[in-house]
Amino acid sequence: MLRTHTCGELNISNISQEVKLSGWIQKSRDLGGMTFIDLRDRYGITQLVFNMETDSKLCDQARKLGREFVISVKGIVTERESKNKKLITGDIEIIVSDIEILNSSKTPPFTIEDNTDGGEEIRMKYRYLDLRRNPLKENLLLRNKVGFAVRSYLNDQDFMEVETPYLIKSTPEGARDFVVPSRMNPGTFYALPQSPQTFKQLLMISGYDRYYQMVKCFRDEDLRADRQPEFTQIDCEMAFVEQEDILSTFEGMTKQIFDKVKDIKLEDFPRMPYSDAMKYYGSDKPDIRFDMKFVELNDVAQNKGFNVFDSAELVVGICAPGSASYTRKQLDKLTDFVRKPQIGAKGLVYVKCNEDGSFKSSVDKFYSQDDLKAWADKMGAKAGDLMLVLSGDIDHTRSALSSLRLEMGERLGLRDRSVYAPLWVVDFPLLEWDADNSRWHAMHHPFTAPKPEDMHLLDSKPGEVRANAYDLVINGVEIGGGSIRIFDRDMQARMFELLGFSDEDAKEQFGFLMNAFEYGAPPHGGIALGFDRLVAMFGGTDSIRDYIAFPKNNSGQDVMISSPSTISNAQLEELNLEVTATED
Amino acid sequence: MLRTHTCGELNISNISQEVKLSGWIQKSRDLGGMTFIDLRDRYGITQLVFNMETDSKLCDQARKLGREFVISVKGIVTERESKNKKLITGDIEIIVSDIEILNSSKTPPFTIEDNTDGGEEIRMKYRYLDLRRNPLKENLLLRNKVGFAVRSYLNDQDFMEVETPYLIKSTPEGARDFVVPSRMNPGTFYALPQSPQTFKQLLMISGYDRYYQMVKCFRDEDLRADRQPEFTQIDCEMAFVEQEDILSTFEGMTKQIFDKVKDIKLEDFPRMPYSDAMKYYGSDKPDIRFDMKFVELNDVAQNKGFNVFDSAELVVGICAPGSASYTRKQLDKLTDFVRKPQIGAKGLVYVKCNEDGSFKSSVDKFYSQDDLKAWADKMGAKAGDLMLVLSGDIDHTRSALSSLRLEMGERLGLRDRSVYAPLWVVDFPLLEWDADNSRWHAMHHPFTAPKPEDMHLLDSKPGEVRANAYDLVINGVEIGGGSIRIFDRDMQARMFELLGFSDEDAKEQFGFLMNAFEYGAPPHGGIALGFDRLVAMFGGTDSIRDYIAFPKNNSGQDVMISSPSTISNAQLEELNLEVTATED
Repeated sequence: MLRTHTCGELNISNISQEVKLSGWIQKSRDLGGMTFIDLRDRYGITQLVFNMETDSKLCDQARKLGREFVISVKGIVTERESKNKKLITGDIEIIVSDIEILNSSKTPPFTIEDNTDGGEEIRMKYRYLDLRRNPLKENLLLRNKVGFAVRSYLNDQDFMEVETPYLIKSTPEGARDFVVPSRMNPGTFYALPQSPQTFKQLLMISGYDRYYQMVKCFRDEDLRADRQPEFTQIDCEMAFVEQEDILSTFEGMTKQIFDKVKDIKLEDFPRMPYSDAMKYYGSDKPDIRFDMKFVELNDVAQNKGFNVFDSAELVVGICAPGSASYTRKQLDKLTDFVRKPQIGAKGLVYVKCNEDGSFKSSVDKFYSQDDLKAWADKMGAKAGDLMLVLSGDIDHTRSALSSLRLEMGERLGLRDRSVYAPLWVVDFPLLEWDADNSRWHAMHHPFTAPKPEDMHLLDSKPGEVRANAYDLVINGVEIGGGSIRIFDRDMQARMFELLGFSDEDAKEQFGFLMNAFEYGAPPHGGIALGFDRLVAMFGGTDSIRDYIAFPKNNSGQDVMISSPSTISNAQLEELNLEVTATED
Repeated sequence: MLRTHTCGELNISNISQEVKLSGWIQKSRDLGGMTFIDLRDRYGITQLVFNMETDSKLCDQARKLGREFVISVKGIVTERESKNKKLITGDIEIIVSDIEILNSSKTPPFTIEDNTDGGEEIRMKYRYLDLRRNPLKENLLLRNKVGFAVRSYLNDQDFMEVETPYLIKSTPEGARDFVVPSRMNPGTFYALPQSPQTFKQLLMISGYDRYYQMVKCFRDEDLRADRQPEFTQIDCEMAFVEQEDILSTFEGMTKQIFDKVKDIKLEDFPRMPYSDAMKYYGSDKPDIRFDMKFVELNDVAQNKGFNVFDSAELVVGICAPGSASYTRKQLDKLTDFVRKPQIGAKGLVYVKCNEDGSFKSSVDKFYSQDDLKAWADKMGAKAGDLMLVLSGDIDHTRSALSSLRLEMGERLGLRDRSVYAPLWVVDFPLLEWDADNSRWHAMHHPFTAPKPEDMHLLDSKPGEVRANAYDLVINGVEIGGGSIRIFDRDMQARMFELLGFSDEDAKEQFGFLMNAFEYGAPPHGGIALGFDRLVAMFGGTDSIRDYIAFPKNNSGQDVMISSPSTISNAQLEELNLEVTATED
């Protein structure tokens, strides 16, 4: 070993010991008579001291070492005169007697500091240098810690990890697959899994009643900031269970990770039906760190001559506490906010609840003080509060008001990053209508079971059928979701039919699963948690990219290794493929 | 939960409790007045009892249930009259009061028994049923247990698991890549990793000095029984280490897994230079559970007029203890064995050491009793032993004799599956000569460092340069291998040059790594263990397929899901691809 200790462990108890340390030069200060070097490794920083008077040759050598040089030193641990309370090793320094230069370094293209001077692009190209910075290192250590906590919990609960294959079969349902040409079977392709869904169900049929896997999944979708073509899923399935068993098992897991990793003891997670989530928060992943629930105003706001409201399917508002003092300019900004294309409201109605009990609104022309008093009563608005009201068709209005609610929560400091508010959203609809293609889509996936009590609606009102499907939401972020599955062949066939699969397609794509259902399939259900997102949530940010060692950019490229790249004609020939068009 | 207990936990202490169990019907015996059902789940088997006298309706219902039906029962735990010592639950049975049929089952296409009547092909197609059988279940439970033990050890040793990308870049070096067409970057491809080699080296450069990952790797090679296109690797790397640190860390890991999983305390692992392994065992992965070392006989066997030996580069033999009594027929079989094309010897010379001190050989014509005595002395052969001698060029002769040695070990019962003999093979050559292409190949991989003391031979005698490369071998199976890496840009460039890379190719394929070496790369090295093979070794068999939940067949197909398969023209168009030839 090229060291006796790491750069993060020496303290007052080691004084007078001879030690050997290895690491990178974080910085070096030449004070004339003395030279100080901060030596860095994964574990911390230790100060090295060189004295011109006692060893001028060594001190000269030390002065010539540049940032990020890799060195190994021998020396004696000594108590510092001026201690550095910020460092674990801040009580000591090493009086160096010997230096070995293990490798030199060119000057890095950006500073290896918590606040680096490097832009996003250069840091992606030199990701291996960016990963030296504390914030990224802490993220990956956190990821490792959370991962091990997840496994430990599941292992203690008798879950067995089973690896499912990566080279599987392409199915058109869901997102777009990445495919892999098969050389040995010309003209055919494997697909990379979007999730191990059907395999974990087969494992339940095999009798492995508690399965988990931390597994890479792949989706060839156009990328957004928080999406990656490959991502990691905590994939779980249980047999002989009901929804309650799954919720309590994974609520237990989440609590234990919070406890182990962040020393936070979470209360029991509240549960909210999907219909309430939509009605009161306009979202299936409400941030319940703050209240500001939606209040529907149709009965008090319509039929007063304001045509915008009168013609709306829904008039709905939120009450922003203590915001009646908003200026015209601030209100205009809110109006601009809701009018942004991605939010899509046509306008914003506000009502200020003045301290004197009067109201000032943007629709004073149509509504009397009494009318507005009725709104305020309904919304529980008090003097000093600001009511913000949107209208239109139900779906778009709720969605826009949800964005406005989150924006107001942010402005009012109600979305504290140190507070964690987990929530189970339950009773999701089984199906959603795809107006573009005039067909039903599975809201979760085609393997989700309808609630038994809603089965009678399956033919007559499929849109009203609910599923035992559930999402785990923390602070407005969907961390995971799952469902109780269909385990009956006929029910599964009926579901495929509802979703517009021909008999042939269903058999071709999922015949193996339907066959398996005929050989003693047990009741089962499961959940999948987004590991990247879970870790990012623990880390207190939204960008999953900062928690992945080697992420891709928004074009799906790894600019460090220049991938994807062209392959040789020989490779293409072996695969019986021809490229029909290329970028130029 | 559809059960209060599993089928593997009830015993005498539970008597008189009302319990609920769920599982599969393993078998059912109708004894007229009584019906017994063995109910099976992942954890075991529990006997259910139905009595015609006390509840004829329930008993009738029970009689109609077929094999592999999934049921849930309520009943009272009762002490058995005739106990079954083979079952954990053999002291008790359940007097059932209520049955719920959760799912029916068609008769499975093969029996769900330890010794099934199903052939390989049908069991692969119905893998989910095959996985119900005890032997496969035990294999996957073992895999899970070994996996968790590996992680626990590495976690305790401060290794951090870092996930490296699956969508990387194709490089022609090494085995054939599986590639993945990129839709967003037309005409370009990702490759699936054959190993995360370059990424783990980058992580060392990033300062993450102890990395591990249990990771799927992919090789598009023609398949053999013990090869799969996707396989799992325990991939590890350490910085600021020397070879000794890596050997001791992973020797420690192996010992701990044996201890935890098999309760076997292993002694320290012997180490053997590659040159000795080849000289004394004719293999770089000797099975040292038994001795029977090679003895070279050139000096005593040549120049006696036997042209076959005289013209041979090497005359080498083994001494099979107590085998002088081999019959003509047995010896002919051994000759046939070494003449098999995959072994390739031209013939076999034998010498029987008779009990009376005389010798009987197949070359008595050329050698006197004194000559043969000299052989016996050299080989340490005693009365009753059988000397078996091969000759020819060094490489082929050693290889053939290695096969013969293993065969004799097998015949003599010296390869006991309950004995584990681990071994480090060290000091591998850096390069091997590829006669077909007249070029040097990296024996391990192009990132392996030459031994400093052999550096001076790099230009003059590259074939004699050794590397700090090592393999972990257990019972003649290569479990893993690794090396100390190059961490200097110029050295890496020189290595690529030796291997016949043009400057351009080296830069195109590995430029990112060579650049990274310029920014403070620390000394580092690592190892990768084949997880499938490790688990199979623990399980006492050679077939890795039995330790993989959903393996592919020898044509790379998953016959259960019918993969690989054709994809739609729309998919091909999106990927800018055309299939040029298909199977027909």
